[in-house]
Amino acid sequence: MKRVYMDHASTTPVDPFVLEAMLPYFSEKFGNASSMHSFGVDARRALDESRIRASAAINSNPDEIVFTSGGTESDNLAIKGTAYGNKKRHIITDRIEHKAVLNPCRFLEEKGFKVTYLPVDRYGLVDITEVEKSITKDTFLISVMHANNEIGTIQPIEEIGEIAADKGIIFHTDAVQTAGKLPLNMKKMNVDLLSISSHKLYGPKGVGALYVREGARLEPLIHGGGHEKNLRSGTENIPGIVGFSHALELSVKKMSEDSERLTRLRDRLIKGVLEVDCCRLNGHPKKRLQNNAHFTFPNMKQIDLVSELSRKNIYASAASACSAHSTGASHVLSAIGLTAEEACKSLRLTLGRINNEEDIEYVIEKIQYLTKNGCQITENI
Amino acid sequence: MKRVYMDHASTTPVDPFVLEAMLPYFSEKFGNASSMHSFGVDARRALDESRIRASAAINSNPDEIVFTSGGTESDNLAIKGTAYGNKKRHIITDRIEHKAVLNPCRFLEEKGFKVTYLPVDRYGLVDITEVEKSITKDTFLISVMHANNEIGTIQPIEEIGEIAADKGIIFHTDAVQTAGKLPLNMKKMNVDLLSISSHKLYGPKGVGALYVREGARLEPLIHGGGHEKNLRSGTENIPGIVGFSHALELSVKKMSEDSERLTRLRDRLIKGVLEVDCCRLNGHPKKRLQNNAHFTFPNMKQIDLVSELSRKNIYASAASACSAHSTGASHVLSAIGLTAEEACKSLRLTLGRINNEEDIEYVIEKIQYLTKNGCQITENI
Repeated sequence: MKRVYMDHASTTPVDPFVLEAMLPYFSEKFGNASSMHSFGVDARRALDESRIRASAAINSNPDEIVFTSGGTESDNLAIKGTAYGNKKRHIITDRIEHKAVLNPCRFLEEKGFKVTYLPVDRYGLVDITEVEKSITKDTFLISVMHANNEIGTIQPIEEIGEIAADKGIIFHTDAVQTAGKLPLNMKKMNVDLLSISSHKLYGPKGVGALYVREGARLEPLIHGGGHEKNLRSGTENIPGIVGFSHALELSVKKMSEDSERLTRLRDRLIKGVLEVDCCRLNGHPKKRLQNNAHFTFPNMKQIDLVSELSRKNIYASAASACSAHSTGASHVLSAIGLTAEEACKSLRLTLGRINNEEDIEYVIEKIQYLTKNGCQITENI
Repeated sequence: MKRVYMDHASTTPVDPFVLEAMLPYFSEKFGNASSMHSFGVDARRALDESRIRASAAINSNPDEIVFTSGGTESDNLAIKGTAYGNKKRHIITDRIEHKAVLNPCRFLEEKGFKVTYLPVDRYGLVDITEVEKSITKDTFLISVMHANNEIGTIQPIEEIGEIAADKGIIFHTDAVQTAGKLPLNMKKMNVDLLSISSHKLYGPKGVGALYVREGARLEPLIHGGGHEKNLRSGTENIPGIVGFSHALELSVKKMSEDSERLTRLRDRLIKGVLEVDCCRLNGHPKKRLQNNAHFTFPNMKQIDLVSELSRKNIYASAASACSAHSTGASHVLSAIGLTAEEACKSLRLTLGRINNEEDIEYVIEKIQYLTKNGCQITENI
């Protein structure tokens, strides 16, 4: 039976080429990069090469890359690492950030910091003038994501970064959903700190990076042997780092081809699904990730559409899959004005390299069927 | 040419059986454990099974296992996680802990905590009566490692744990060097928090665990989607966790056989190397890890013995390999009374599953040669 995975914003399969690049580092070239003998030298070389490869993919210097255990750790390091040791106390972020940004901010609020959570418009866009107005003399950090993980809306990062730079404020962006999908150029983007996750771009889980602009001062979260220029201690995960850097490089190489194809597939998907009675598209119609489609079916009877689709071997998401077994309604959908009920009648489909035209038609057909007749659900289709 | 890896305290190769167990989770069963569809369910199942497998290996309950990115993160979570939100301010540890314990303690000192660094005797042993005497009403945490990573000395953990329990003080032990080598029984060991690293026991790098006794209160270091019972957010590294849990299980299964064999090999190694003029064994003669041999050659001319041995394809260590490119003399050797000069004339050999009798004789021969004639070095051997 056909299986259609359309949950690439949650995670992606490791690319076979990436896995092949990783394999020698598990059991053959298994050295600790801190060891002085030849096993250590081989590991160190793989680490250095990975750093060069990753930095080239985002046009940064190699020594501006800090390898971490993933996007969540990168976000935590960016936010808390900037906050600790800073005399100023005010942070600006927005209401639709990933919890890996929001929860560090809430933690810092408990420690006496002040955080402004900017609203977004109905498309999920942060208003640049709101950013500007929120800045006080006490503001040391602005953190606004590059693109949203649920509704795919792309924020005006360069403009926000320009404002931050003008005021001497550190600017962090969570690029977990955009790395490998949108061009990232650290020489041009007005960004001081940028988070990337490997497993969202066909690399292995358990690894990621934080870009740290030269000169940006950070306190480490994980202290120890002084790895990663003392910003992130712990024996380096060489196979993971090798895999991640190859996956990032590959994503950049394939970006233009992938992007064109995915945009076409996504547009067909959106057109087909919007034929469902009353169905609405969430997120910005134009400023959105090429692989994201997010719908609300307000007339649909209360059913678990994700489970129903899963029974048809279509794998989709109802909300951010990075929230482990959380039951509350999505804070993102709430922020763009959906009621809790509407949020529960929503569906995210995120496309990837493995999807093709046939998948799209299959998914449209099943969704139209499941939501047809004024969105009544029949027993079997 | 013969290659002899004797640096297993730095890192170990991934066991082929372990790698095989991991492989399906990279590109086939690649789901996010938080997803509700069948890819997610498969990932969640693998996670749950890994947790049961890991907990069985240390006789804990599954929900007492928190998966982390490795031993350093586990140590940081144990120490800072206990400190944050605690009203008391005093920590007891010792001078020969790994930097993953010492540096979080130093960080906490900067934040206003008070830390007692207990001395050790010339064998590296912590004195239990010193632990007892150091306790004040303000003490909330004792952290003493199970066995030392450089000299292999095994601490009286159960006795220290008993003292801590009597006083209602949280007891953490860094078991990175002992997990898979010494029996760990969480129902008997009087330990509240215990750190394990995967790559020291033939599992993959980038993963580890913190055992957290039911009821022990911790603040997370990494905030986000609420994974790992809200103690460690971030999409779970399923292939890594699967590999780690298999490696831990395997190490426990093979423990008695491995231990007997390694003890025999190590004793032969120590006997052979001690034939070198003036050579001394560091660490405790009896209370030491079965795979650790650590020597000082005080009469040896200043040479880089590790590099010389590496040229003979023998891979050993001069100090803790977890200290990335640090140049200072070992704090461990200094704490047991060695001068900086003696520390620089020291050598650590740590055995593992791949070593055999032939390796031992080869290493003894090369060390005897390199250090012979009153420890003069000849140009070539």
